[in-house]
Amino acid sequence: MRNWIWLLIFSQSLLAAQKAKLELPWGALPKNPPIPKDNPMTPEKIYLGRQLYMDPRLSKDGTVSCNSCHNVMASGGDNRAFSAGIKGQLGGRSAPTVWNSAFHTVQFWDGRAASLEDQAKGPLTNPIEMGMASHDIVMERISKIPGYVSQFKKVFGEKGMRIDNLAKAIAAYERTLITPNSAFDRYVRGDKKAMSAQAIRGMNTVMEVGCVSCHTGKNFNAPDEITMGEGFYQKFPTFTDNEYVKKYNFLEDKGRGSLTKDPNDDYFFRVPTWRNIALTAPYFSNGSVKTLDEAVRVMAKIQLNKDLTVNQVSDIVEFLKALTGERPKQPMPELPPDPAGETTIDG
Amino acid sequence: MRNWIWLLIFSQSLLAAQKAKLELPWGALPKNPPIPKDNPMTPEKIYLGRQLYMDPRLSKDGTVSCNSCHNVMASGGDNRAFSAGIKGQLGGRSAPTVWNSAFHTVQFWDGRAASLEDQAKGPLTNPIEMGMASHDIVMERISKIPGYVSQFKKVFGEKGMRIDNLAKAIAAYERTLITPNSAFDRYVRGDKKAMSAQAIRGMNTVMEVGCVSCHTGKNFNAPDEITMGEGFYQKFPTFTDNEYVKKYNFLEDKGRGSLTKDPNDDYFFRVPTWRNIALTAPYFSNGSVKTLDEAVRVMAKIQLNKDLTVNQVSDIVEFLKALTGERPKQPMPELPPDPAGETTIDG
Repeated sequence: MRNWIWLLIFSQSLLAAQKAKLELPWGALPKNPPIPKDNPMTPEKIYLGRQLYMDPRLSKDGTVSCNSCHNVMASGGDNRAFSAGIKGQLGGRSAPTVWNSAFHTVQFWDGRAASLEDQAKGPLTNPIEMGMASHDIVMERISKIPGYVSQFKKVFGEKGMRIDNLAKAIAAYERTLITPNSAFDRYVRGDKKAMSAQAIRGMNTVMEVGCVSCHTGKNFNAPDEITMGEGFYQKFPTFTDNEYVKKYNFLEDKGRGSLTKDPNDDYFFRVPTWRNIALTAPYFSNGSVKTLDEAVRVMAKIQLNKDLTVNQVSDIVEFLKALTGERPKQPMPELPPDPAGETTIDG
Repeated sequence: MRNWIWLLIFSQSLLAAQKAKLELPWGALPKNPPIPKDNPMTPEKIYLGRQLYMDPRLSKDGTVSCNSCHNVMASGGDNRAFSAGIKGQLGGRSAPTVWNSAFHTVQFWDGRAASLEDQAKGPLTNPIEMGMASHDIVMERISKIPGYVSQFKKVFGEKGMRIDNLAKAIAAYERTLITPNSAFDRYVRGDKKAMSAQAIRGMNTVMEVGCVSCHTGKNFNAPDEITMGEGFYQKFPTFTDNEYVKKYNFLEDKGRGSLTKDPNDDYFFRVPTWRNIALTAPYFSNGSVKTLDEAVRVMAKIQLNKDLTVNQVSDIVEFLKALTGERPKQPMPELPPDPAGETTIDG
C-alpha cells in the first residue's frame, strides 16, 4: 500500500470533494463482519471465546485478561494513554477499541497481524502485557481447567486443545462485537432526522477538508475495496512543522517502521476507525490528546496542514459523535472452575 | 463473641453430634439476603452498583475494579493466594468470594466492616488495592462522568453524589449475588436424590467430627441467631503443635488482633462460608493451601486436633462440592463514557 498512498490521497481527496453532495464515501455498518472460511461462527465457539476473552488466567499472574485493555463494558478500549499489563507495566501504544475490529483489514496500530486470529496470540506472550512464557504454557494452563478441556473438544474436536483454536474462539467472539445503528447509520439508511443539522454540516466539512481521503469506507478507516489482511496505512505525522507534533510527541513512535526496519515505513500507521470515537479517549497511538475537539484540530493541521475554524471543529465533533453505535448486549460468561487448584496463582 | 466462644464450641459440638440424625444445623440458602432498612433495593440502584463494581476508574490508575479481586464471572474471588491491586501490589490476605457475602454478619477476614456498605469503601483508598487518595477524590472522579451524575441523582436524589451512596449502590448489587439451588439446598428442600451417598456420608461426618461447631447456619459460617453486624469469630489456628501450622505459615497473621491490638483477639478470624468452596481455591486467609482435600485435613487437625481417614476426607470433599450453587446470571453493564476525557489515565 505504502508506495501508492500519495496518489490515493490526492485522487480521493479531489473525488470526495466533488462527490460530496452526490454520494457519501462511507456506508452503514453491516450487521455482520467478514467471516474467514476456516473459522465459522457457532454459538459454542463464541461462548468459549467470550470466556477466554474475560479470563485473567490467560496472563502469567492471573490479573490481566483481554478485557483488561479492551473493555467491552466500557469503550472497547481502556481509556488510558498506554495500556497496563501485568505488574502495572505500561505498553508503548494506546489500546485500540475491540468494537468493530472485525472490520479492520489488519490488526494493531502497525498492522503486524493480518487477522483477529493472529492478533489474539500476540498479547498473551508479550512480557509487558499478559506475560506468558510461551503459547505452550498458555495451553498447558488452560488444559488444567476441565471445563475448557471439554469445550475445546466439543468446538474443535478431540485434539482441539491448541493455541490456534484458542485464537479462533477469541476471534469468533470478537466478530460479535459490532456496534450498529449509530445516528449516522440510521441517517444513511434513510432516516434523515437521525443526525442533527450540525452533525450534517460536520459530515460535509470532513469531506470538503479532506479527512475522508483516509477515513473512508464503512468503518471509516479504509476503502471498502481493500481486502482482509492487506491493510490501509497512512503517514503520521505528515506535516511536522507545527506546534502539535512537538507538544504531543508525535515523532517518537515510528509505527510500521519500527516493525519492518524499512525507513520507507517510518511513521506509517494503520488508519484508525472513527466509529465510537466519542467513547475512546484518549486519542492517537500514544494517547496524548484527551479531547475529541483537540484531536480534530491536531489531525487537520498535521495531516492536511489546515487550520480549522472553531465552528468547523465543533461541527466535525458533532458528526463524530453521530458515529457512536449501540454497544452489544451480552451476558457475563461463567469462567470454568479449576477444582484441583492447579492454576492457582501463588503471588 | 470472643469470650464465650469456647463454651459455644463445646456445647455445639455435643449438640451437633447428638442431633446429627435428627436435624441439620444448616438450612437452604434463602432466595434473598437481609436488606438494611436504609438501603432498599431498586433496579436502578442495583444497575448503578453493577456498573460501579465493574468500573476500573474507581482505582487510581484505572486498572483495578471491585471485580478484579471479587470476580463474579469466576469464583466471586480471584483464585490467588494474595490479591493484586494497582501496579501488581500484593495484599496480605486472600480475597473472600463476594457470592452470598450478603449473608455474612460482618465483612473482611477480621470483621472490620459491619456491613457490605462499610466494606465497599475500604479497598478504594487502600494504597495497595485501588489506591485512591481519599473518598473525596473518588467522588470527584465519578462526578466527571455525566452518566454517573444523572444516575446518582435519579437513585439518590439531587445531592446524592456521595461516597456513602456509592457504597450503598455497590452493596445493593452485591445483595443480588446469591447462589441458590446447590445440591445440598435441593436435598434439604426434600429432593433426597440431589446429593450422592458419598456426599451424605460427608455431611454426617462433618457433624460427627465437629466442624459444624463453627460452620453452621444457612451460610455455614455462623449460627442463624447472630444479628447482622455482630460477627462470629473463631481462633485459628487452635492447635499449633502440628506440621501444618508451620508448613502453611499460620502463625504469621494475627487476624483480628492486628486490627484491635488486643492480644485476646490474636488469631481470631471471621468464620468463612463453605458455600461454593469447591470453586474458591486457594484456601485460608493466606491462600496457602491449593486443594480442598488438603484444606479439610488441615482444618480437622489444627482446629479439632483430629486426623481424618482418607475416606473421611473424600466424603467431606464430596459434601463440600454439593454446596456449589448456581451462579447468578447477569448482563454486562455499560460503563458510562466520559466524553470530555477528564478521567483519562495518563500512565
